[in-house]
Amino acid sequence: MSDFDLAAYLAERRALVDAALERVLPAEDTPPATVHRAMRYSVLAGGKRLRPILVIAGAEAVGGAPCEVLPAACALELIHTYSLIHDDLPAMDDDDYRRGRLTSHKVFGEAMAILAGDGLLTLAFKLVADNAALARDPRVLRDVVTALADAAGTFGMVGGQVVDIESEGKTITPETLEYIHLHKTAALIRAAMRVGALLGGGGPAAVEAIGDAGRDLGLAFQIVDDILDVEGSLEELGKTAGSDARKQKATYPALHGVPASRREAQRLVAGVKARLAPLGAPAAPLGALADYVLERKN
Amino acid sequence: MSDFDLAAYLAERRALVDAALERVLPAEDTPPATVHRAMRYSVLAGGKRLRPILVIAGAEAVGGAPCEVLPAACALELIHTYSLIHDDLPAMDDDDYRRGRLTSHKVFGEAMAILAGDGLLTLAFKLVADNAALARDPRVLRDVVTALADAAGTFGMVGGQVVDIESEGKTITPETLEYIHLHKTAALIRAAMRVGALLGGGGPAAVEAIGDAGRDLGLAFQIVDDILDVEGSLEELGKTAGSDARKQKATYPALHGVPASRREAQRLVAGVKARLAPLGAPAAPLGALADYVLERKN
Repeated sequence: MSDFDLAAYLAERRALVDAALERVLPAEDTPPATVHRAMRYSVLAGGKRLRPILVIAGAEAVGGAPCEVLPAACALELIHTYSLIHDDLPAMDDDDYRRGRLTSHKVFGEAMAILAGDGLLTLAFKLVADNAALARDPRVLRDVVTALADAAGTFGMVGGQVVDIESEGKTITPETLEYIHLHKTAALIRAAMRVGALLGGGGPAAVEAIGDAGRDLGLAFQIVDDILDVEGSLEELGKTAGSDARKQKATYPALHGVPASRREAQRLVAGVKARLAPLGAPAAPLGALADYVLERKN
Repeated sequence: MSDFDLAAYLAERRALVDAALERVLPAEDTPPATVHRAMRYSVLAGGKRLRPILVIAGAEAVGGAPCEVLPAACALELIHTYSLIHDDLPAMDDDDYRRGRLTSHKVFGEAMAILAGDGLLTLAFKLVADNAALARDPRVLRDVVTALADAAGTFGMVGGQVVDIESEGKTITPETLEYIHLHKTAALIRAAMRVGALLGGGGPAAVEAIGDAGRDLGLAFQIVDDILDVEGSLEELGKTAGSDARKQKATYPALHGVPASRREAQRLVAGVKARLAPLGAPAAPLGALADYVLERKN
């Protein structure tokens, strides 16, 4: 993969995603304007666009074209952003800052933050129904909607947040921590890659391999996130470093130490690349993204 | 319609819906149990099941079978319930009672109420992807997902709640009140009938007619709701009568008086029945439901 230019790939795909997000989000002055302002405030606050880029790379890995899956790519970013807005609410994690800016409820109030999240989740499902790739096989939509709903719902992200909240301030087992990470983070990253593979026209074996790779990549991503929270600075993370520890959130390094956490992330990413190997060159972007997840500094 | 036994129809369809809801909701002890308990608490609290029955009646009006659209019928009830849970939150309408029982956040806390709502909305989209009716034509799923997302999102229900919240304590115009009623209530009732017609195999003209009838029926439903809030009792409504006035919520009778409100609801329901007339006998249940909406006492 040494000849794959990941920086250029990320820049190009990110520009595609940002332009598409700008297009699919209602304008600031479209009534009801307040909620649309709130939705744009959080979605367009920057961010790595990792999940939408994984949708695109998942499609490319099976021969799909980026432009055919852009609405689905946006959908993943909207679901991710909705979860951040709701997680940050006073009744949940009560966070004032996210990506270096005030959180939605600090700017727009709690009611509007709840509604902006609700609006983003709903818009995401509208977007997945409208991908050019579906013209090839409209039956795929059923699997795409199911994958997304499973990843976002109580057996996915919502479930992870439930257990996370119920675990705060308690001593939790490594099994519970893995449950939280798998559901809160890995489920959506798995769905991103799986949805990309489905829309890209992948057969059942490729869709399963890419989905499994996504789950492991998601878990690695969260372990690295935990490590960065221990080691990072406000400047690099856009949130206060050590904030997990202060809130008594269990993290991978807290339970296993930094060196073992790093080894586990490396082991997972090696597994991701092994799963992708049979797909050959078209999966090079996914493989490079897996390295990036491991090596990222923010 | 005099020979149509609406009471028997409602009882049968409601039993179908209640059994299906029991099936599609995760069991109380399925982890993460708290959020599943909260979801069941609100969905299985009773209620008329008007929206799911309208999905079924919408399908029947174009020759569809009830059992083929039950997941979609459940989806409409889940979306309705999610909106009630979020609307009742302290940051929104701050209601302690709903359908005669404590609201979700009073029983499970705010965090779990928000997550139960999020979980229900997400599960709804999973359910619409899984209707037997889709075997006939899988392409219909795109229209169904779009109809539901449009009705639930910022150009539908969420948008209505935004304007409702922003209008509290203010003098609002009849136009703003109609906007709130059309978006907060009528959009989802329109979607219920439209989704039923789509899944039932209706052609474009029938789907449009049934959708338009749904919008007008939804508006009539909300006007009658406003009248009942002025006139009803806690016993009949399961919530405190006059609660809209106490919260300085604008209502149809407050702006137009009870007699003019009643006339408007009658006019709308007459229009609904005129729109349904070309569909003939299969639309008899929808027509009887329209009468029921007008004459209901709770």
